[in-house]
Parts: sequence; C-alpha cells; structure tokens
Amino acid sequence: MKLGVCYYPEHWPEARWATDARLMREAGLDIVRIGEFAWAQMEPEEGRFDWGWLDRAVDTLAAEGLQIVMGTPTPTPPAWLVRQYPEVLPVDAQGRVRRFGSRRHVCPCSREYYRLTERIVTAQAERYGRRPEVIGWQIDNEFGCHDTARCYCDNCAAAFRLWLKERYGSLDALNEAWGAAFWSQWYTDWEQIGPPILAVTEQNASHVLDYYRFSSDAWVKYEAFQARLLRDHGDAAKFVSHNYMGNFPDLDYHKLGEPLDLVTWDSYPTGYAEVMAEQLRSPDDPGAFRAFYAHDVGDPYVTGFCHAITRGIKQAPFWVMEQQCGNVNWSTHNTGVGPGAVRLWTWHALASGADAVVYFRWRACRFAQEQMHSGLRKHDGSADLGYEEVTALQGERSLMDEIAAAPYEPEVAILNDYEDLWAVQLQPHHRDFSYQRAQFVLYRACQELGIGCD
Amino acid sequence: MKLGVCYYPEHWPEARWATDARLMREAGLDIVRIGEFAWAQMEPEEGRFDWGWLDRAVDTLAAEGLQIVMGTPTPTPPAWLVRQYPEVLPVDAQGRVRRFGSRRHVCPCSREYYRLTERIVTAQAERYGRRPEVIGWQIDNEFGCHDTARCYCDNCAAAFRLWLKERYGSLDALNEAWGAAFWSQWYTDWEQIGPPILAVTEQNASHVLDYYRFSSDAWVKYEAFQARLLRDHGDAAKFVSHNYMGNFPDLDYHKLGEPLDLVTWDSYPTGYAEVMAEQLRSPDDPGAFRAFYAHDVGDPYVTGFCHAITRGIKQAPFWVMEQQCGNVNWSTHNTGVGPGAVRLWTWHALASGADAVVYFRWRACRFAQEQMHSGLRKHDGSADLGYEEVTALQGERSLMDEIAAAPYEPEVAILNDYEDLWAVQLQPHHRDFSYQRAQFVLYRACQELGIGCD
Amino acid sequence: MKLGVCYYPEHWPEARWATDARLMREAGLDIVRIGEFAWAQMEPEEGRFDWGWLDRAVDTLAAEGLQIVMGTPTPTPPAWLVRQYPEVLPVDAQGRVRRFGSRRHVCPCSREYYRLTERIVTAQAERYGRRPEVIGWQIDNEFGCHDTARCYCDNCAAAFRLWLKERYGSLDALNEAWGAAFWSQWYTDWEQIGPPILAVTEQNASHVLDYYRFSSDAWVKYEAFQARLLRDHGDAAKFVSHNYMGNFPDLDYHKLGEPLDLVTWDSYPTGYAEVMAEQLRSPDDPGAFRAFYAHDVGDPYVTGFCHAITRGIKQAPFWVMEQQCGNVNWSTHNTGVGPGAVRLWTWHALASGADAVVYFRWRACRFAQEQMHSGLRKHDGSADLGYEEVTALQGERSLMDEIAAAPYEPEVAILNDYEDLWAVQLQPHHRDFSYQRAQFVLYRACQELGIGCD
Repeated sequence: MKLGVCYYPEHWPEARWATDARLMREAGLDIVRIGEFAWAQMEPEEGRFDWGWLDRAVDTLAAEGLQIVMGTPTPTPPAWLVRQYPEVLPVDAQGRVRRFGSRRHVCPCSREYYRLTERIVTAQAERYGRRPEVIGWQIDNEFGCHDTARCYCDNCAAAFRLWLKERYGSLDALNEAWGAAFWSQWYTDWEQIGPPILAVTEQNASHVLDYYRFSSDAWVKYEAFQARLLRDHGDAAKFVSHNYMGNFPDLDYHKLGEPLDLVTWDSYPTGYAEVMAEQLRSPDDPGAFRAFYAHDVGDPYVTGFCHAITRGIKQAPFWVMEQQCGNVNWSTHNTGVGPGAVRLWTWHALASGADAVVYFRWRACRFAQEQMHSGLRKHDGSADLGYEEVTALQGERSLMDEIAAAPYEPEVAILNDYEDLWAVQLQPHHRDFSYQRAQFVLYRACQELGIGCD
Repeated sequence: MKLGVCYYPEHWPEARWATDARLMREAGLDIVRIGEFAWAQMEPEEGRFDWGWLDRAVDTLAAEGLQIVMGTPTPTPPAWLVRQYPEVLPVDAQGRVRRFGSRRHVCPCSREYYRLTERIVTAQAERYGRRPEVIGWQIDNEFGCHDTARCYCDNCAAAFRLWLKERYGSLDALNEAWGAAFWSQWYTDWEQIGPPILAVTEQNASHVLDYYRFSSDAWVKYEAFQARLLRDHGDAAKFVSHNYMGNFPDLDYHKLGEPLDLVTWDSYPTGYAEVMAEQLRSPDDPGAFRAFYAHDVGDPYVTGFCHAITRGIKQAPFWVMEQQCGNVNWSTHNTGVGPGAVRLWTWHALASGADAVVYFRWRACRFAQEQMHSGLRKHDGSADLGYEEVTALQGERSLMDEIAAAPYEPEVAILNDYEDLWAVQLQPHHRDFSYQRAQFVLYRACQELGIGCD
Repeated sequence: MKLGVCYYPEHWPEARWATDARLMREAGLDIVRIGEFAWAQMEPEEGRFDWGWLDRAVDTLAAEGLQIVMGTPTPTPPAWLVRQYPEVLPVDAQGRVRRFGSRRHVCPCSREYYRLTERIVTAQAERYGRRPEVIGWQIDNEFGCHDTARCYCDNCAAAFRLWLKERYGSLDALNEAWGAAFWSQWYTDWEQIGPPILAVTEQNASHVLDYYRFSSDAWVKYEAFQARLLRDHGDAAKFVSHNYMGNFPDLDYHKLGEPLDLVTWDSYPTGYAEVMAEQLRSPDDPGAFRAFYAHDVGDPYVTGFCHAITRGIKQAPFWVMEQQCGNVNWSTHNTGVGPGAVRLWTWHALASGADAVVYFRWRACRFAQEQMHSGLRKHDGSADLGYEEVTALQGERSLMDEIAAAPYEPEVAILNDYEDLWAVQLQPHHRDFSYQRAQFVLYRACQELGIGCD
C-alpha cells in the first residue's frame, strides 16, 4: 500500500519546491503525481518545448525519494493552440462551439488535436520515460468530465459515418438494425446521417445508442494512441494509467481499460454527496439517506460502489489517484471535513482493494477555479487537518501492507455493461428507473449482509 | 359505433400481413388506419413512387373485410428530401434549425414543402382515392405536436409580414393596433418586423398574439391545401379528417376543422396523466387528484374534457383515431394498464359522442422511438390484454350501436376561443391562472352534477 | 418632500393631456417624469426630429404648475435604428444576438450607439435643458435591467481587451493576476482573450470578475457620456439622475453614482416579493416569511434594505423615481394592493431619507407589455385606489416636510462593495451563501433593534 499526493509545481515559486518535497517525505508519502495540466508550461509556443522547469521539479522530488507519476497534459490545450487550430474545440448538444477558458475543450476526432498530441506526448515520453524516478504515466485526465464524452462537431459527424460503415457494412444493414422503417427514417446516402441532436422530438434510440458507442470508442482510440506513444518512446515497462470517475456513465469503462496497465479513480466522498445518494438510492429507500451523513464523510455505500466498479475493470487492484483530503470547492455544499475522515477514506480504499491512495492536492491553490479547494497544506503553506492525519497514518502502515497483500475475493459479482446502461438511459420507461440504481440496490444489499461484491 | 386499429404494414414482413388481417377481423374490428408516416416507403427517392407494397397491404386488409383510413405521409419527410431541400426544416424559438431524426421536422411556409406535398398527395389520391376499401383520409398527423405549431425561420418571417399586410392594410393601422407607441416599437418599414423571439424581455403581446394567429393559420392553410388535393384527385365523397390532440392549445382547432369532414382525436388517458391533472385542476382543488388514480385509468374528467372539446369543433360526432390500449412509452411513468381499462375508455368515448374508436396500435414495435409502446398484440405477435378486451366487446356491440344512434344533447356549452386562450397565456396576470383551467373547473362542476356539457 | 408621477403623453390622445395635467395638480402632485422611452416619437427617422408633440406636452403640464423630469430615450432605440445599425444589438451569454421587440436591446460598447446617442441627447438637451419647467434629467432607464448589464458581442470583446491592457499593462501581469498557470490558461497574445462564456466548465473567477468590472465600467462610461452632453448642451445647474433598482447586483452602483447629481430608485414592494424574500432571508429564518404578507405590502425589510442601499450611494437624500401605486403586471402573482398601502410606502420612503416619491404610472396603459399594470388612474381614465390615496396625503404634507427637513443619521453602516459581491457570487462555496443575504441579516437585525442603518 502506497500513499501519495497530487502536486502542481508550476503553481508555486521554484524556491518553495524543496520545502514541499521534504514535507511530503516527512508525512510518509511515497508518490507524487505531476504534470497533467501543464501543456502551456511545457510547450509555451507551438513546437518550442521548455522542459527545464519540469526537469528541476522531478529532480527536487526525487531528491527526497519520491516516486513520480507523470500526466500527459492533453486535457488543457493552451490558448495559442486553440487560437491557431480552432477546429480542436468541441460542439455541445445544442450545436454551440464550446470555448477556451477551462479544461477538456477538445474534440476527440480532430486531426490537429491528434497531431499536436503526438508531438508533445512523444517529446515528453522521450525525456521522462526512462528516468527511474518516473514509475508510470497518467494519460490525460478524467476523460468525459464536464459532459465532454460526446462532441457533435462536423469532424465527429464524418468520423461517426466511417464508424457506422465499419459496423454495418451497408446502409441496408444499418436501416434494418435501426428500424429505420419507423417514421420514414430510411437512409439512402451515408451523408444523410448526422449526430443525433436538435431533432424535433425523441430520436431513434438505436441512432443515439450508436452515437454513444462511437463517442466512447473515439476516446478509447485516443487513449490507445497516447498509450502507444508512451510505450514506444519511453520505457514500456512503466505503467500507463488513466483516472476514472467512479460511476461515471458516459464512457465504456471496460473498453477504456484495455489500453491501460492500471486503472485508477478519483474519490470525493462529500462532493455532490446528496446528488449521488439521490441518483443511486431507491426513492422509497426505507433507511432514508441523511444529508448530514453525506456531508460528514459521504455515503459509504456510494464510495464503496465506485471502488467496486473500478476494481471490476481489470479484476485487479486499482489506485485512488485523487483522494479527497479536505473540503472540495465544486459541490453544492462544500462542507469541511472532520477529524478521522481522511483516515477512514484511506482505509476504505485499502479494504476495497486499492494498492495506492494519492491525495488531492498538496496545497490549496491561491487562484483560479480551485482557489476554494483544500489540500494537505493550507494556502499559506501551513499544515491542514489532512496533513496531520496522513502523517499519523505512518503507525498503521505495516498493517496496511499486510491487508494489501491479501487478494480481494468477492463472493458475488454484478454485471456492469455500459451498452445496457445507455439503452436503459435512452428509454427508461419510468422516470425513476436507472441501470445504476438497480445495480446499487443489489450492491448495497450485499454489503449490508457482509458479502463482498465485485 | 365502429372499432378499428392503427397498423404499420411497413414495419413487418409481408408474410405476416394476412395473419394480422385475420386476427383483426376475429377481434371484431371494422377499420384500419395506415400510411401516415410511410413517405420514405412510398417515395424512396425524389419523384419515384413505390405503391406496390401499399397496394398489397390494402388488398390483404380488404380481403378480411376491413375498411381503410389512409394517412398522407407528410409529417415525416424522408432523409433524401431534407438533405436536398434543407429549407423545409423548421427553426425553434431559440433560433436553432431543428434537424432530421424524428418527425414533424417541417416549416409550414416552405414552398418546397408545398411542392413536394403536392406531388405525393396527388399521386396517393389518384391511386387510392377511388378504391372502395378506402373510406376516408387522414391528413398528416397531429399538427403542432412536439412544439411544432410555430416556426421562426426566414420563410415564416416573410409570410408573417404578408399576413400582417393583409390583416392591417397599413403600417399605421398595425402600429395603432399593437400599441407600438409603447417602448419605441413604432414600425416604419414592414421589413423591420420579425418573429417575436429572442428579445431582451417580454415582447409586445399583440405582436406575439398575431404570430400565434399567423402560425395557426399557416397550418390551416396547409391542411386545406391537402384537403383540396385529396378531393380533386380522389373521390370527394370520402371523408377528409385530421387527428387532434384534445386540449392542445397552440392551434385554433375551430379553424383547423373548417377544411375537414370529420374531426378525430388521439386519446391517451394515462399519458402525462399527472401533468394534465396539475395543469387543469385548481391548485386548491378540494378533492385533490390522486396519482394512483391517474396511473390507473387516467383522470376521467380530463379525458371527458378532451372528448367535449373535440365534439365541439363540428358540433357533431367525432372519432377517437388513436385510443390507448395498453401502456404508452412517452410519459413520465409508463405504467401498465389494468383489466377493464380499455373497455372503460371505449365506452367513455361512445358515451361522449364518438362514432368510432380506433386503437393505437396493432402490435408493439420491435424498434425505434416507440419500441416500449404496447399494442393490441405483443412484440412477439401474441395477444396482449388489449386484444382480449377488444375481442370481448363483441357481445356489447348492439348496445353500443343503440347508444351511438342517439344524438348527444348537452344542456350547457362552454365557450372555447383560442385567441382568448392565447391572450391569457401571454399575460396571465397570475402564475396559476390559465384559460383551460378556468374552463375545466366549469366543465367538471357540470359533470359532477350530471349535466351534459359541450 | 415632493410627490410626482410618471407620465407617457405619447400613449394618449393629445386632447386628453390638459385633463390629465389638471387631475395631477388636484391630487397635489408636484413633479412629472416623461420621455424616457419615446425615441421613436422624438426621432421618427434617422436625423429627423419631431419635438412639436413634446413641446406641447411640456407646455400643458407646465400650465398646471407641474415640474418636469425629462428622460433621455436611449433604453429603446427604434426599429429603424436597429435595422440600419444591427451592431447595436447585444449578445447574450449563450452567444445569441438579442433582438428588437422590447427594451434595452443595446450593446454598451457599440460606436454607432454612442454616435446616435450623442445626436439625440444633444438635440434634446439643447431644446429642453434651459426651460425652467424642466428641473432635471433622468439618463436612460434602469441600466442593467433584464440581464443586460453584460453583453458578449465582438465589440465588447475588443473593448474588454483594451480595458485589460489598461488595467494590467502587460500580459505577464495579467497572467500573474489571473493565476493563468492553472489549467494551461496562460495567454501569449491579447487576441486569445475573449468574453468568459461557453467554456466547457467553470471559468477562471478572475477572468469573469474582470468581465463584470469591465461591463459595469462600460455602462458608467456610457452614462458619464450622456451626463456630459446634458450639462454641456443644457443647463449644468439642473440635476442629472438615473433610476436604480434597489439591490440589483450586476452594476457597481457606487461608480454609477459618480457622474450623477441625484440617485433615485424604482420601488415595487409586491413585485417578486416572495423571490426577494427567498433570496435575502436566511433559509433557516426563525420568523419565516409569510407569502400573504409579501403580497399585501411586500416585505418591509426588503424595501427598507433597498432604500438604505440607494441612500448609501451618495450618502445623501434620494428619490423614489418609480413608486408602485397599485398592482404590477410582471410578477409571479400580481395581486391587488389594499387600502393604505400607497400611503404606507410613501411614508416608508420619506422615513428612509427620500426627498421625493414619484408614482408609477399615471394611468393604466391600454396596450403592449404593461397593459395589465395599474396606475393612479384606471384604463378608462377614472380614479383608481392609488389616486384617492395620494390625494388624501395632502393633509399630511406639512408633517412630511418637517420630517424631510431632518437629516437621516444612522448609527450603523454596512459595507456594500460590488466587487466583493461578485467574487462571492462566482465562488460562493455553499449554494445558499450570498453577499446580499449576509448584508441583509445584519440590516434586519439592526432594524428590529430600532437602530438606523446605512
């Protein structure tokens, strides 16, 4: 069992880095994840790379014995890139171009995005892939987050048609499979087929389902493209991972796992705790969910459900790549986190089959979107509750290792099929029915009976 | 009193048609409605018609003694048409083009749509209008459904200006009528007038009201255009009908009735039952509406209210052209339908002045948007509850005929004026006040006292 | 203490004006506000002014001894202007052009709008600025109303970049201040910066905050431009005012006050009474707000809070430029106003430091957006409840004057800082936390203890 932390050296004066690294070591941390949003710092203008700062950051962390997981910075194409190649911007389900100014502003089918990805990931793999301190890679960050799994631009429309040709072979087969006899939806030319948006009313579920499949496949393909670059240009022995989002429904997480050596997920138990509980718990749940509880440590069944989903991807130990360690900033109620919560979450992850828990984030940021998000250290650099609690875990590390060494062997497995999930989502037949809720009811029943469940 | 069913031969193998026709006869059905969404099958490419399959379908049904109501297929222009003539697509109140992929994706003012309508309706009328098995026509399907009564494209803007010129004669008269002195809305050139959308805040109610009138008139004009084609090119003795949607408020249903011989409506008592009840019942209704009741057989006052509205259009017997006969698929809760419900609804329609009840649909479809909608027969072809119940009605048919022969003679009439409805809708003065709710309160009071009400 | 009324001579036959003026005098009114929406009547086509009607209106009112506050008509550019110069139209946060048809359809950065404003305001100032009956000006009307404080068009984008250059001097300084190191938001060219809309998820709060500041500044600049025209081309001794909207949060009301001699606000206690109460009162307010109360005379704490905000702008007496005097038409529930309410509101304004109360409006309009809004007189010209009540106030005028003469001297002041308000609005950290709610809790506590509060 390893512990780690997410760190953004590019947010802090270089003079502070050594202090931070020392404090990490003193807390007993083994791992640091860096780099996944720093494209602008790595490639400040097109084709000109600046690796100096990152070399020094790696050196500084390594000097304290920390192992590094390095992220490829592709979730955040910089301003110069977007202005030069506006086609990389995605289009939403309302037909609007989604603009620069946050993250994940990319279309998974853009050739320019592929080309620019290839250049930076190749350069990054060549520079860091063989450094011993870098133990593995994280490709990109949280694919699909912020409703970005599906893009509806013209690039995607063209790619969708190619995907359909491959799947069906002929328009006759497609028309037959989609039931295009219904409402005169019969296609006589591939060019007549577009993304399933902005129709007058509900669209053909088979059309939409295929767009969901296609979109998921597009990200899997993009991920595999990066995985190959990292292995070809770095050291193929180092793990390639991606950080999932628990019960996120928009991507086929099984397929997304295929190009990866390691699956990880980002666990924020109090983030949207009441929303998750509402989505997953039955409307007539006899032991009704208490909001207080959700905002204390989150609903443990929901957290455990997400651990189980992640564990199921590779039927193998997983990591928590981002573990909440104080209040978040992006939920409806960003309540503080009480004493014991960080310890509890760490043990819960371990007991659920996690091999490592990486806290998010090292230090509260002084600016931008996550200014109100806590870290192990406070804005001013002093220790926050999370730091104290992680440090105190050192006395429990040998027990942790012992437990981690025992394989997780559940008695029950629940089928988790994303195509089924989407099909139910498209035609639920009852407003309150959802695939995940049905799964969760089974999962929770098993947990309450003490029966391990995969 | 006749009974019938809606049938889509284009959804099923031709080899099955004879079996279906036989089973219809065995259930005592008299009528079959067909054709209203089959443009792609009737005209698979521009100008090339394929009537063979429809000829054989008519023959097969006629062979079992069934009478046919044929729909014109104009609610669903096929993919080739939309791609060739994109101007037929409507624009929504957000200024977005509404795309192909469902139905009713048409602008009522498009010249191309008129031209293409003329060709197919003329051909259809010539081929089937004189066949004795075809007893009447249904023009299009549910005008206005899915918020399509009003289109905001440039074609419509131009047509609106012509409509205004005709109505007011001069800009001075228009400015006077609209109170354009208010907020500098005075128009000095017809071209300054557009559809009333996307303004900064509430728009001039007279402007909006005229757009509602104009939009309603546009559909009436389009319907009249089809009615003339059917009478000119077919047999003018056969009835021309359209299927209304009960208390649908966006079209002037009185004007829409003028070109028609017969008015029909589509009755789905449990569809959005709780929404309808909320819209129509008073917020402080003492006998508060029970959801259970709504999802059992629907609110009988709501169903009766819609029967009464429809009956009032021509002050004459009407048809239920689509009668729910099992669960629907498009509501918030698509609950099953219990024993006796289909019989109850059939008798309710009869007692409300209906001359015919046509069940929707023959058989549950295996694909596309209505895959989860039931029919008289199940997906696998076996009898569903509805089929059994309709079959059992045969013993009551003579009593039905007796009642149907007696004219419906209500003691009370409630004025139903769509221009008033729209005026109240635009400036209700109180969030909970609606024209239809006010009507409904009166209607229900009469019904509870046993007083017939038109 | 003066009393007045808002009047729209352009809505009524000229023959009626003298009667209206006489009835105003008989009710004891001193002041009439006119003109603020009459651009189409003042300049019926580009560059051609028609002042005749307005001259006669001023003469008629003056003949009864009424003093005039004249509005510049810039909130409502006429149809000819918008069609000739479509660039004046604003763009909303969804990227859509907001169209003609209501009011405030203007971009504050449009050069054409400045040019056209200059022409009409100059002409108006020259014609009326030295007439003794005109005692002061109102610039435009309710800046920011209907979500118009922020426009997102290309004109604004360019102006925003200039504003940023002035504020930060260099891109390095801007990147530093915004924390652009976060998520690769680093800018390397000013042209990469746009309005903060349509990003994939939450945007950099510093970017948004600067856009709020810039937008507010744009209106202040536009207001100052008009103020200078009025003073340069009229009589600089006459007051220049603008009518605020109480606790409206989108503009920096302190900065907006700088170019003004007098700050006024528009008070509608029952308008959105329940919405205001919900926004301002604490969710766990022990003395929970009663809707009945809100719809009777409104929440007096909310009204008083708005008086206090307005009073604070110039630390000086203010006016109520629009005082509700019957039902409004634009709220969720436009309930009638009971006997005593108008008197109560007038006294409340006086006791809060108002120097004048101007009722809105003289007579209920027979058309357009405010057809359902009451006035002192009814649609048919007869006296409404408000007229009776205002007339009855004459016996209390000397007491009113006595109180008005005593300065308002509060013991407590609450800081009201719009930049703080926006910062909290952008990252509230808890769904229910708002800057104004926090202020209101303090304000109400003081009021309940009888402590005056500024």
